[in-house]
Amino acid sequence: MAATRRPGRNHLFIPGPTTMPDRIIRAMAVQSEDHRSPSFPELAKPLFQDAKMVFGSTEGTVILFPSSGTGIWESALTNTLCRGDTVLAARFGQFSHLWVDMAQRLGLEVIVQDEEWGTGADPQRIEEALRADTDHRIKAVMVVHNETATGVTSDVGAVRKALDAANHPALLFVDGISSIGSLPFKMDEWRVDCAVAGSQKGFMLPAGLGLICISPKALKIAEGGPGGGTGRNDRLGHAYFAWKDQLGANAGGYFPYTPALPLLYGLREALAVMREEGMENIYHRHHVLAEATRQAVAAWGLKPCAKEPKWYSDTVTAIVVPEGIDAAKVITHAFERYNLSLGTGLSKVAGKVFRIGHLGDLNELSLLGAIAGAEMALIDCGVALTPGSGVAAASSYLRENPLHKA
Amino acid sequence: MAATRRPGRNHLFIPGPTTMPDRIIRAMAVQSEDHRSPSFPELAKPLFQDAKMVFGSTEGTVILFPSSGTGIWESALTNTLCRGDTVLAARFGQFSHLWVDMAQRLGLEVIVQDEEWGTGADPQRIEEALRADTDHRIKAVMVVHNETATGVTSDVGAVRKALDAANHPALLFVDGISSIGSLPFKMDEWRVDCAVAGSQKGFMLPAGLGLICISPKALKIAEGGPGGGTGRNDRLGHAYFAWKDQLGANAGGYFPYTPALPLLYGLREALAVMREEGMENIYHRHHVLAEATRQAVAAWGLKPCAKEPKWYSDTVTAIVVPEGIDAAKVITHAFERYNLSLGTGLSKVAGKVFRIGHLGDLNELSLLGAIAGAEMALIDCGVALTPGSGVAAASSYLRENPLHKA
Amino acid sequence: MAATRRPGRNHLFIPGPTTMPDRIIRAMAVQSEDHRSPSFPELAKPLFQDAKMVFGSTEGTVILFPSSGTGIWESALTNTLCRGDTVLAARFGQFSHLWVDMAQRLGLEVIVQDEEWGTGADPQRIEEALRADTDHRIKAVMVVHNETATGVTSDVGAVRKALDAANHPALLFVDGISSIGSLPFKMDEWRVDCAVAGSQKGFMLPAGLGLICISPKALKIAEGGPGGGTGRNDRLGHAYFAWKDQLGANAGGYFPYTPALPLLYGLREALAVMREEGMENIYHRHHVLAEATRQAVAAWGLKPCAKEPKWYSDTVTAIVVPEGIDAAKVITHAFERYNLSLGTGLSKVAGKVFRIGHLGDLNELSLLGAIAGAEMALIDCGVALTPGSGVAAASSYLRENPLHKA
Amino acid sequence: MAATRRPGRNHLFIPGPTTMPDRIIRAMAVQSEDHRSPSFPELAKPLFQDAKMVFGSTEGTVILFPSSGTGIWESALTNTLCRGDTVLAARFGQFSHLWVDMAQRLGLEVIVQDEEWGTGADPQRIEEALRADTDHRIKAVMVVHNETATGVTSDVGAVRKALDAANHPALLFVDGISSIGSLPFKMDEWRVDCAVAGSQKGFMLPAGLGLICISPKALKIAEGGPGGGTGRNDRLGHAYFAWKDQLGANAGGYFPYTPALPLLYGLREALAVMREEGMENIYHRHHVLAEATRQAVAAWGLKPCAKEPKWYSDTVTAIVVPEGIDAAKVITHAFERYNLSLGTGLSKVAGKVFRIGHLGDLNELSLLGAIAGAEMALIDCGVALTPGSGVAAASSYLRENPLHKA
Repeated sequence: MAATRRPGRNHLFIPGPTTMPDRIIRAMAVQSEDHRSPSFPELAKPLFQDAKMVFGSTEGTVILFPSSGTGIWESALTNTLCRGDTVLAARFGQFSHLWVDMAQRLGLEVIVQDEEWGTGADPQRIEEALRADTDHRIKAVMVVHNETATGVTSDVGAVRKALDAANHPALLFVDGISSIGSLPFKMDEWRVDCAVAGSQKGFMLPAGLGLICISPKALKIAEGGPGGGTGRNDRLGHAYFAWKDQLGANAGGYFPYTPALPLLYGLREALAVMREEGMENIYHRHHVLAEATRQAVAAWGLKPCAKEPKWYSDTVTAIVVPEGIDAAKVITHAFERYNLSLGTGLSKVAGKVFRIGHLGDLNELSLLGAIAGAEMALIDCGVALTPGSGVAAASSYLRENPLHKA
Repeated sequence: MAATRRPGRNHLFIPGPTTMPDRIIRAMAVQSEDHRSPSFPELAKPLFQDAKMVFGSTEGTVILFPSSGTGIWESALTNTLCRGDTVLAARFGQFSHLWVDMAQRLGLEVIVQDEEWGTGADPQRIEEALRADTDHRIKAVMVVHNETATGVTSDVGAVRKALDAANHPALLFVDGISSIGSLPFKMDEWRVDCAVAGSQKGFMLPAGLGLICISPKALKIAEGGPGGGTGRNDRLGHAYFAWKDQLGANAGGYFPYTPALPLLYGLREALAVMREEGMENIYHRHHVLAEATRQAVAAWGLKPCAKEPKWYSDTVTAIVVPEGIDAAKVITHAFERYNLSLGTGLSKVAGKVFRIGHLGDLNELSLLGAIAGAEMALIDCGVALTPGSGVAAASSYLRENPLHKA
Repeated sequence: MAATRRPGRNHLFIPGPTTMPDRIIRAMAVQSEDHRSPSFPELAKPLFQDAKMVFGSTEGTVILFPSSGTGIWESALTNTLCRGDTVLAARFGQFSHLWVDMAQRLGLEVIVQDEEWGTGADPQRIEEALRADTDHRIKAVMVVHNETATGVTSDVGAVRKALDAANHPALLFVDGISSIGSLPFKMDEWRVDCAVAGSQKGFMLPAGLGLICISPKALKIAEGGPGGGTGRNDRLGHAYFAWKDQLGANAGGYFPYTPALPLLYGLREALAVMREEGMENIYHRHHVLAEATRQAVAAWGLKPCAKEPKWYSDTVTAIVVPEGIDAAKVITHAFERYNLSLGTGLSKVAGKVFRIGHLGDLNELSLLGAIAGAEMALIDCGVALTPGSGVAAASSYLRENPLHKA
Repeated sequence: MAATRRPGRNHLFIPGPTTMPDRIIRAMAVQSEDHRSPSFPELAKPLFQDAKMVFGSTEGTVILFPSSGTGIWESALTNTLCRGDTVLAARFGQFSHLWVDMAQRLGLEVIVQDEEWGTGADPQRIEEALRADTDHRIKAVMVVHNETATGVTSDVGAVRKALDAANHPALLFVDGISSIGSLPFKMDEWRVDCAVAGSQKGFMLPAGLGLICISPKALKIAEGGPGGGTGRNDRLGHAYFAWKDQLGANAGGYFPYTPALPLLYGLREALAVMREEGMENIYHRHHVLAEATRQAVAAWGLKPCAKEPKWYSDTVTAIVVPEGIDAAKVITHAFERYNLSLGTGLSKVAGKVFRIGHLGDLNELSLLGAIAGAEMALIDCGVALTPGSGVAAASSYLRENPLHKA
């Protein structure tokens, strides 16, 4: 208690964890319960069904793991693939890099398609690689929907079309950790086989609950036992992340091991919150807040890390600072002087970009406070900006564009 | 649940209740306790002592009532005065008006000194009235320290000097509801006899706990029984708000009737929060945020309701809208379109002013979000403003002026 | 933190404040709101209507004060009576005594009917007094429904019959603080004029919200101005507890001064909780738990303070300890050794009785834990009991008698 | 809401998750934070150090995973062992069975030593097996410290002596999920190499945080890369549960992926709670409550599942119901009729035993309520018991035996 207390709240504008509605925090403040009681399924069962709304799926199967999103990546790979299997992965930022790294550590052969940071998965190249894979060595295509590190959104629908065009049977795995619940996601329409989400982003929950939505096709392969009935018999080792144990227990409304109860109550409340706002409204709101942020960036005379508008992410904007400015200092200064948490530049773009996360439970004035803070931090750190210019541009845009469609 | 959910949090910039730190909300989430248990005084006793810090008092006695601030006004009057007693009161806004009204309803004769709204208590006139009261008919002088309706702060120290100059024995009663805990308050130095505070302002708690700090002089009069030992025997009726019952129980760390337990835990936490920031830092922060607000108002080309800088309140700014604009519409629009809660104009200034409360647990970016919102609402309602001008002025000021002194 | 932590929860078996359901605690953990916002009435308005269910009223008007129950007593008296008015009050315990005392302090003439502690209001004597009052000097009859100090419930319906039999126009005031929400209460059927309740008992909330339900008759008198249109003009002084200010604001869904917001959310949740259990079920449950307690007392060979079964309270049982035993020591020992909070003996019965409160959100096993604890404390303090005898008797009764009717 | 609300709280007497102190629930009700902020290590860093107290370790290294305890089992195996490695495991209940099953699923050879359910690991047999393993094929010995299914505690110190006597270099892995934080655990003294704990038992937190304490020896092997520097190169696949990534980030006070923030705040509070009670007091309390439970069982004329006193667990008692009684019905009845959650019989003992968990934040009267409830449920289900006999026996014991040593 030696340090002086910082007044007011922290302004959290990282790309997750996101600001939670107070009602979700309240919903999680629960005493322990017996997860094997006769009444427990009243809580658990609807979650599996209701969560599918957020994935844009009616055909899929949702499993909830007590883990972060990283664990769910592992779950997708280890339940469907065998040692030495080949996967195709686009890499264009820190999180797509980490997924590739995980696949390699788990013993998979990864064909990496590197794209320039600031762009996303290239459906054309994916189609080419699949066409070339005439003996169907590639068992899965891994795509990060929203690359959090650079503020880039890939076109998953186009990737699906690439698979179709190549007439390739590979599974389609999508990391939707920083998109699902915030950006339009169409599991069924895009025929995604494993869609991976984390509780701490669009679901507006703390980290600790990993969600996966699994297509009937992926499920069948997983159920086929080692090798998925293909004769291959060296399934990647797993136990904790096994779908089978979960599905067996889930069917009755239970879990194979003790679930993280507060997060289940939190998820129930989060789904209610999302239903009450409406998924279309949520998507539209994220777009409006993102566009307002981009208006501010333009007014500052700066550029997003995303190379072209088609890559712009509506959940996070990575902003390139001018030459000679250290983005890390801007971020530290924003935190220490204005209690504003911005996202840092990771790996290749460390020191070059800072990120404004604009996902989760936000509205206009929260964002404008953050834009004002970013502006002040930039000026303090030597960037030549007109004070108020970012807020002026963003607020003018927001005045014209309501968060929800009429 | 038919209505669409509003995303994000409400931006609360009324002059109380104020935004509470989450840790205070948490501290109040307590199960019931026996308020007569042997361990209860461990909670209660320190509160009476520690709360005096916020009043700037070591000599006073603090009592905590389960009531709003209005009740504490009544407590001050009914414990010290008799039916038909005369009091002198300055009136220059809705809250000073209401206190006068209460005194009249309780059966007191009130000499009202009306001042122009936008100014405050006039020490000169008070001195004159007291000098004229040669037979000391006036038993108390009532001053509202911070008139919440107009954003005006009176100079209580100067009022004390007026009493001294007139050599008048009247008690000095101060309504510090929207000042104590936010503006410098010097109970002992100013020899205030009853200082009245509410939990929902500078204390950053919900309403429901009324605090009064009582001078030894006032306490002695109250203890004198009907008439305070003066021979007058028609003490104003009261029971709930009797100091005597409270003080008897408080001495042992108890209360005469069931206390509002969550608020006691909340008060304990609030006092810790205030100690950790430091009262001088708190006062300075309120001044800086208020000045930033005034910079924005000036940049908009508008004027505060307070007539001169000497009247400027550091907890609330009432802003006069241009002719032809309905301030009530601005306020409603700000709430409905931007989820920004501004203070309404009350009574004489209804429709003419809106108010920005800048007290409680706030920091720069919270305020800038609100200024951005007020600006947007003003523009939407037809006021000719340069978008971003208010935020630019306020943020430039805030960049130069840290919330805490080094 | 020097003291060793006490493990586990406190077992709270005083007659209020009562144990709260966790969901009510959660519902109160809210950030501040503007109590003058356009959306505020969505919260406030239904409360006035819905709370009437608990009073057994459709004709009455409910007002919610930020105060303890004591304040509401004052409110009932000061809004309807004038200085020097005469009231008739039965006194048979500490709380009926305190209400008499308050009436006297407020300047009323109180005709006190003292009854033996352990009995209640005597309808016969009340009828006689009213018959004798041929000039209708008595303006109100004050009855404590449930005397918390002795565990005695008066028959309010019989008191109403006494008024009717005497054909007397006096108002009927009932202190239902420790009964309303737990015992059957029939405001309309009994034609009660002011029924007073506190949040910390049957409503399962913290103290701090005082509830009063007012009959049309009492309301009309209050609205008549000083003297209620009777020509009497010396209404008891009040301001904070004025009904008029509340009713004016309540009509629109607002309050005349800042309400204790968490308690409003708490009340909303408490009313939902009560509806979901059902008032008849609640009443039945209180009866069953009370009877189980009495079975335990009988098994211990002890006697309740209530003289006859017709006086038995279903919310609290006061138990007389054997000669030579100091009940205060039993209570202190129960708290310090077993973390069990029992009610102390007040005033005349101090040291002679201890009380088990069995109201609020309780069930069988909570009560049996407390009975076990009381038994252990009694034995430890020298009372000759068969270990387990109380629990055996109570549990046998509870096995046969479900908390809810089928 | 169609169903009638159940009044009062659930009485949770399963062997975890355990009842949490309200202050821990409060501590977890936090808004999101940036887990990469400069101030984040102030929260995280002390946890790694302070948690070692609960393991009885100063030399070990603690890692915190967002997972249930099952995940931590996997972590212990996959960070230290290679495909095809042999491990020795004692099996004597459902949880020791599941750990064996996991090891097999992950590709390990498991030498299973089956012991009669109701007994525990046999140090003699372990020593023999190790002596026979002259070429040190056995890489690890896996012991469940407290078998939750049968209420049996194994003697880990004796197992360590067996390893020493055999002069065998195998690692010693201990599942302390239902013991650590409740039963004496001496990581350093017993030279345990991996001790696995879950947040939802002795730590009095929700599930969702898995804790492992790792000896320097195990850490060195893990750091040796595939095969631990032994030339073996087929390390079990893992990524999420990799120690290396955690340790790299933990060193600075961070995590490699988003942590479950509420659980970190909860852990901080839980460690404070444990310090304030004192580990020795906690262990003693668990012993006293367990012994009281066993006194009740004896008074009922029933027998624990544990065959001999030396196997008795102080965190859970499994109780054998008489022939002809279905334990599952007793458990269901206890839940539905008395809101008492008892542990079910798993696998081999399904229908034959019910379990009373007596770990976590409990005290005498909580336990006595549960014993009363179990007694009532048994009687209702046809077991011939003297009503009150269990409570009498337990309470007599508890009167003589305080929870804490003087």
